[in-house]
Amino acid sequence: MAKVLTPRSESYSQWYNDLVLKADLAENSAVRGCMVIKPYGYAIWEKMQSVLDRMFKDTGHENAYFPIFIPKSFFSKEADHVEGFAKECAVVTHYRLMNDPDGNGVVVDPEAKLEEELIVRPTSETIIWNTYKNWIQSYRDLPIKCNQWANVVRWEMRTRLFLRTAEFLWQEGHTAHATKQEAIEETETMINVYGDFAEKFMAVPVVKGIKSANERFAGALETYTIEALMQDGKALQSGTSHFLGQNFAKAFDVKFASKEGKEDYVWATSWGVSTRLMGALIMAHSDDNGLVLPPKLAPIQVVIVPIFRKPEELAKIKEVAGGLIAKLRDRGIDVKFDDNDNKKPGWKFAEYELKGVPVRLAMGPRDLENGTVEVARRDTLSKEVVTLDGVDEHIVKLLDDIQTNIFQKALEFRAEKTVSVDTYEEFKERLEEGGFIMAHWDGTPETEQKIKEETKATIRCIPLDQPDEEGLCIYSGKPSGKRVMFARAY
Amino acid sequence: MAKVLTPRSESYSQWYNDLVLKADLAENSAVRGCMVIKPYGYAIWEKMQSVLDRMFKDTGHENAYFPIFIPKSFFSKEADHVEGFAKECAVVTHYRLMNDPDGNGVVVDPEAKLEEELIVRPTSETIIWNTYKNWIQSYRDLPIKCNQWANVVRWEMRTRLFLRTAEFLWQEGHTAHATKQEAIEETETMINVYGDFAEKFMAVPVVKGIKSANERFAGALETYTIEALMQDGKALQSGTSHFLGQNFAKAFDVKFASKEGKEDYVWATSWGVSTRLMGALIMAHSDDNGLVLPPKLAPIQVVIVPIFRKPEELAKIKEVAGGLIAKLRDRGIDVKFDDNDNKKPGWKFAEYELKGVPVRLAMGPRDLENGTVEVARRDTLSKEVVTLDGVDEHIVKLLDDIQTNIFQKALEFRAEKTVSVDTYEEFKERLEEGGFIMAHWDGTPETEQKIKEETKATIRCIPLDQPDEEGLCIYSGKPSGKRVMFARAY
Repeated sequence: MAKVLTPRSESYSQWYNDLVLKADLAENSAVRGCMVIKPYGYAIWEKMQSVLDRMFKDTGHENAYFPIFIPKSFFSKEADHVEGFAKECAVVTHYRLMNDPDGNGVVVDPEAKLEEELIVRPTSETIIWNTYKNWIQSYRDLPIKCNQWANVVRWEMRTRLFLRTAEFLWQEGHTAHATKQEAIEETETMINVYGDFAEKFMAVPVVKGIKSANERFAGALETYTIEALMQDGKALQSGTSHFLGQNFAKAFDVKFASKEGKEDYVWATSWGVSTRLMGALIMAHSDDNGLVLPPKLAPIQVVIVPIFRKPEELAKIKEVAGGLIAKLRDRGIDVKFDDNDNKKPGWKFAEYELKGVPVRLAMGPRDLENGTVEVARRDTLSKEVVTLDGVDEHIVKLLDDIQTNIFQKALEFRAEKTVSVDTYEEFKERLEEGGFIMAHWDGTPETEQKIKEETKATIRCIPLDQPDEEGLCIYSGKPSGKRVMFARAY
Repeated sequence: MAKVLTPRSESYSQWYNDLVLKADLAENSAVRGCMVIKPYGYAIWEKMQSVLDRMFKDTGHENAYFPIFIPKSFFSKEADHVEGFAKECAVVTHYRLMNDPDGNGVVVDPEAKLEEELIVRPTSETIIWNTYKNWIQSYRDLPIKCNQWANVVRWEMRTRLFLRTAEFLWQEGHTAHATKQEAIEETETMINVYGDFAEKFMAVPVVKGIKSANERFAGALETYTIEALMQDGKALQSGTSHFLGQNFAKAFDVKFASKEGKEDYVWATSWGVSTRLMGALIMAHSDDNGLVLPPKLAPIQVVIVPIFRKPEELAKIKEVAGGLIAKLRDRGIDVKFDDNDNKKPGWKFAEYELKGVPVRLAMGPRDLENGTVEVARRDTLSKEVVTLDGVDEHIVKLLDDIQTNIFQKALEFRAEKTVSVDTYEEFKERLEEGGFIMAHWDGTPETEQKIKEETKATIRCIPLDQPDEEGLCIYSGKPSGKRVMFARAY
């Protein structure tokens, strides 16, 4: 069978686009920059949502829902925030269509103009803090720990499926606290939740760190990030958690009476991950044959393909497979039995490879006679023949193995691609090979900006576990107390 | 304790508003007509979503996601549809804010005008059928059975929390079929799913039927509905399922090659329920003390309130309660142990009554001595003392009882409030008492319209199980072969 994907070696970017389309994950819509998430792609997103939602609830958060529209004036209230977000907003100005006087379709009714224009939320800090104002009077009302699953819109000029789209799906947590310390702890708790999710479920190793001032969220005092490395050597920011200080409380006048009876502004955090994670998941593990999905997030974890010529062969296979399917489902495994007879087994093998199903079983009449089944794993593309008796136990272990293996593989790749450099020459040279580059930086926004302009590399983060180390900035030669992590990024 | 709610007898409408606010379900936002769904209200909606989503998947549907924006021109393509929806749309005309030249906040950048204005989806038939066009070539691509959980916007002038809001949350199913028969079966399957959900989970009895032409969905050939009766005698349309024929396929030119090689337009259905169901749930069962929730949708099914004076008493209660909580959770029951010592037990009792928690346990030192616990049920406001040994089993049965009891109560109420009338005089008289009125109608939109203008009553539906019966239209005196169901409605 001809390869359906452009090989990564030829064009990583084209390979990604091919893969998203051919594996039925998403496609562009008739609306510029907005994607359609297709059922198979959405099923992966649902698995992600379900795990994350559980993690949020286990850390004491509740879901709520706030309006999609934000009054324009709210955006003027927090100076840094408006600077960062206002430019790329979709604006609702009118609220009615009417029949075109020429009788040709519909037009916007000019009479039905909104008194105040509305912004389609690019993020919800402003509308939420305007709401929290009414919820908070005293320390007894704190903390508030809400999360929202929602769609948001940022009018991006250059879009790519999942990675950068005008509309995307995400969750945004917004918490309110009585003390600075508690808010900082919340910010850190959530970046750790994101890190655990990325590593344990997506099998994507991440570097946790804090952003430099240039790369900070608009309105935050500190932004924590998890940074993942893609196979082309570029970084992908995969989740952020912001300590917002009292900025939004001051902008929306949200004060509380403390236990001691003093009045103070409330402390805030916000944190989010989006359908961008789908991009990270796709790019981190997949190969030229298609998706490679971590078993914990695969909508179909095991597919069984019967190999048969005659209906009575299928009937026998169905019977044996039925018993196995019941056992696997009892263990919480998502199994599909594909007896569609419009397609040949070879076509199905390629299709499930393309779709990244972790384990594929093939069962034919000879297998039945021998009491065996052929087990293929997607990550290594290897096959083995296993006795039917006890194969359910084998599959459970295999799924665990695959989960561990693809994480290890990604971890080794990252280790290979992470280097320390001490000169700007070496920095520029290594940058061409991709990967994370640990280098000294003088701590100024100006130097960071210069490096970005000259090399397109940005400081991805100052890793949390980076040891102190005396050195000299690769650009300015000024003293530095710690290496930071540079990369070109998505 | 003073009553926190306006009694229903005084003002049903004010009682509803009070209840939604005081039980922390939702509130109005700063954006006209858009609500904030608060955590407790959202937790009920999440339980609804979870059950419905399972029912959709069990009937062969998959989730997907389509853009929130719809190009204006799409709305002109299906004539009835545009007539029904275009008037009440939010329109995005510009995509950028900029700093006000006067330095006072932000303004819409007049340069950044969209080439084609975008509508914020009021429903997604048009954008979805424009997408399906690319997914469907042959009968092998059919059926397509997608569902979407999403927010939609309809610019309603008079809004009420949950019942009618400018933005609301819903699910919309959109299916494509090779035959008319299959599409009709799908439409019926889904109205049955909605009916089952309403009766078995919400404990709200519903009448299933089809809408008259006047009340049909804009663009449908047939609209099926479930109609529920509220305590004030008004009907609430709680879910609809539409047979769309080939209207959208023709509007968006979606054809397929049949098994026989003939080309034909694809057959369509759509169906949806929304956060309006929250309104139905609240209004159907609750009383002057607060919410009454069916156990199957209650975020907290059992609350345990410890009665103590000294910390050592609490410690003992905690120990005993801990064992019970573990047992209940093992059985999948959501339990809360409320040992907040800022609040007195009496306050807590009132609070959980207000919030509709089905079962409340009170545990004090004397109960421990006697090996008993006080069990109160929300629906009947009755209490009993039960031995601790085996109380978990008792609670499981009690929750079942409550679920059945509130359904039965609503069913009896509906039976009392459903009458048959044969004259227009009697019709108008009975209408003042509220309820469902079964009456003969001549089948014309004109008569229906006249009755609506004169009495504010509409035909809620032609019930599916309504027997044929010769009679005369109450308004025109013309012959009728079947009674239809009238009511005033939300």
